[in-house]
Formats: sequence, structure tokens, C-alpha cells
Amino acid sequence: MLTLYYAPHSCALASHLALEHAGAEYETVRVDFAAHEQRSPAYLALNPKGRVPALVTDRGVLTETPAILLYVSQIHPDAGLAPLDDPFALAEMQAFNSYLCSTVHVAHAHRMRGARWADDPSAIAAMQRKVPQSVGECFGLIEREMLRGPWVMGERHGLCDLYLFTLAQWLEADGVDTAELPKVMDHRRRMAELPLVRKVVAEETT
Amino acid sequence: MLTLYYAPHSCALASHLALEHAGAEYETVRVDFAAHEQRSPAYLALNPKGRVPALVTDRGVLTETPAILLYVSQIHPDAGLAPLDDPFALAEMQAFNSYLCSTVHVAHAHRMRGARWADDPSAIAAMQRKVPQSVGECFGLIEREMLRGPWVMGERHGLCDLYLFTLAQWLEADGVDTAELPKVMDHRRRMAELPLVRKVVAEETT
Repeated sequence: MLTLYYAPHSCALASHLALEHAGAEYETVRVDFAAHEQRSPAYLALNPKGRVPALVTDRGVLTETPAILLYVSQIHPDAGLAPLDDPFALAEMQAFNSYLCSTVHVAHAHRMRGARWADDPSAIAAMQRKVPQSVGECFGLIEREMLRGPWVMGERHGLCDLYLFTLAQWLEADGVDTAELPKVMDHRRRMAELPLVRKVVAEETT
Repeated sequence: MLTLYYAPHSCALASHLALEHAGAEYETVRVDFAAHEQRSPAYLALNPKGRVPALVTDRGVLTETPAILLYVSQIHPDAGLAPLDDPFALAEMQAFNSYLCSTVHVAHAHRMRGARWADDPSAIAAMQRKVPQSVGECFGLIEREMLRGPWVMGERHGLCDLYLFTLAQWLEADGVDTAELPKVMDHRRRMAELPLVRKVVAEETT
């Protein structure tokens, strides 16, 4: 049995979608960010980073979305979430997911988590002002160069789609002009209509 | 034949070390950051992100350190750079590498690349002031919770060691108090003494 610790509206949605998609045996535990539960001693004992997602397995705790996604795809190879038998295609997938975690998610985080990188309130406000541009540029690159269509990696639906859908939830709140992103928005719409996505999103937000 | 595009003192060192460690057939091309070559039309045609590393293969271009590292370990399985037959251990490795790219490298980047996330010069200066603390906290977590010893993942030397060594090059310039990081510094010293590391570092910096 696997246990996913998540918070609604966080990047943990991607791992949740992967578990559901793979047909994994899992349960979820919601971490209450409003009550700062991610900084509680109990949660920090589980994940010293104080963030979500965290996936508890019988061998230990895994963190970081790209790692959890690869793990789920490997323990459920029949789900076809990743090209496990093709090192180049797998690396392309990992490269996309690395871009999401190290660049796209980071640009977004400057809206609400600026205190990670500066103390001065005016500096934090300056970071917030740039989020529409910096997140917009990331998604512009995805729109022009990365999203092959109909899915991120082309004909084959997989981990990148779950992760891109997750971060694309934040576009409007980040002030990005979504009219500039027709392929990304079409991808988000098609993802949102999948029964498994509807089920997981409903579970997280009710 | 593989071709690695790198810049000295960048995170591309990790990929360079992996290629050398694996005994791969490869050549390197230095990208001149001082001349902004990474923003040239020729380089952007290769890697639209305008960053390094980029690894040109006969099937296309790969970017993002965690993806390139995994790829090199997969096409040279005998080098033993990653636990390819153990999904949990592989995910632990990918989680460590994801933390380096999405949190540690990002904290460091606020010293020289603050313009990615704010336009106001005083905000960029405020980011620079916090780098010793934010990078120090990242490495403190690695020191206390992640670096098992003697290597990152314990007895088995591998990709995480190459990548940690690479980012640990920047500690002094980031203003981090290295006296607080005895395990990290001992790891860096032992890595620096390996013949393959001496060879690659010399090649990049001369």
C-alpha cells in the first residue's frame, strides 16, 4: 500500500493522477497548508523538506514530483505511463518534467513564496509583479517548442501530460494571458475531461 | 557519438562527469557565456532554452541535468552509475537530483540571475543578500538528512555524487559557511581527488 501526502491546488496533483492512472493501491492524506501542517514536527519527521508531495512506500518515503512519477510508472509498467524500454524517449520525458519542476514551478512560486529568496517586502512585491511575464515565457516555450500534440510527447499519453495539466491549473491566478497559449489550453481542456482526472480533482477539492 | 554543450563553472559539469565516468564516446563544445553565445540564433536553434547543458545525440537533443544523467546511466549500464534494476532506489536517486535542480540550483541562481524573477535593481540586490542563507539551508538539509556517507546514496557511488559535487563548487562564492557542512565538504574533497574528476575539471577550466 502506498500513501500520498498532498495539498489541494499543489503540484502533488500530478502524483495523485499518476497513482490513479496506474491503478495503484494507494490512499491519500491531505496536509492542511492553511494550518501550516507541513511545518509540524510530525510531518517534518516524514518529509524534512516540509513540502508536498510525499509518497510513503514500504521501503521509505519518496519526494519530488519527477521522481514519484517515474517510480509509479516503473512499478506499474502495464499502465504505459512512460517509455521505460527506450532510454532516449524516457530522457525526453524526464527533461520535460525537470523543466516543469526547476523552471516553470519555480517561476510560479515567486508569487506566493517569495520569502524563500528575499526578506525585503518590496523585493517580494517586485517578484510578484514579474510572475505573469516569467510564467508566461515558460508556457510560451512549452507552447512553441515542447508540446507536440495531441499530447506532450506526441501520440503517446503519459507522465508529462499529468504534470503539465497540474501546473496549467495556475495560469489564470498567475496572471498569464491564456489567449497566447492555444495548444496548452486545448491540452488542459482535454485532460480535464478525462474521467480519471475529473475523479481525482473532485476528490482533492471537496 | 554524443556532443555535450557546456560552459565552465556551470551545472553542465555533472553531465560531463557522467559521460567520462561511463566511458561514453563523446566530444564537448564550450559555450561562451561571456559573449552571450547561449543566446545566439545558432545555439537557440539547438536548445531554445538558451542554457547548458545540452547533449546532442543521433536521435535529437536532450537538456536538463537529471534527464541527461539518467540517459547516460541507461545507455552505459555497466558503468553502474544508477540502480537501474531497482525502481525505489532509482526514485530515491531521482528525488535527490530533482532537489538539486529545483531547489538548490534555484537558490544559487538568485545571486547572478535575479533578473529572471524581478526587474527592480533593489529587489535583485535583496535576492543576492539572501543567497548565503537560502543556499546554506539547502546544503544544511543535505548535510543532516540526505548525504548518507560515504557517498550520497550510501556505499554505492553514482549520479548523485557527480551532481552534488558540481553544485558544491559554488558554496564559497555563494557566501555559505562551509564549516557548518563537514560531510558535504568531505564528500567534495574525496570527489575532487578522483582521477576522472581531476581530468574533466582541468579540461573545462583551462
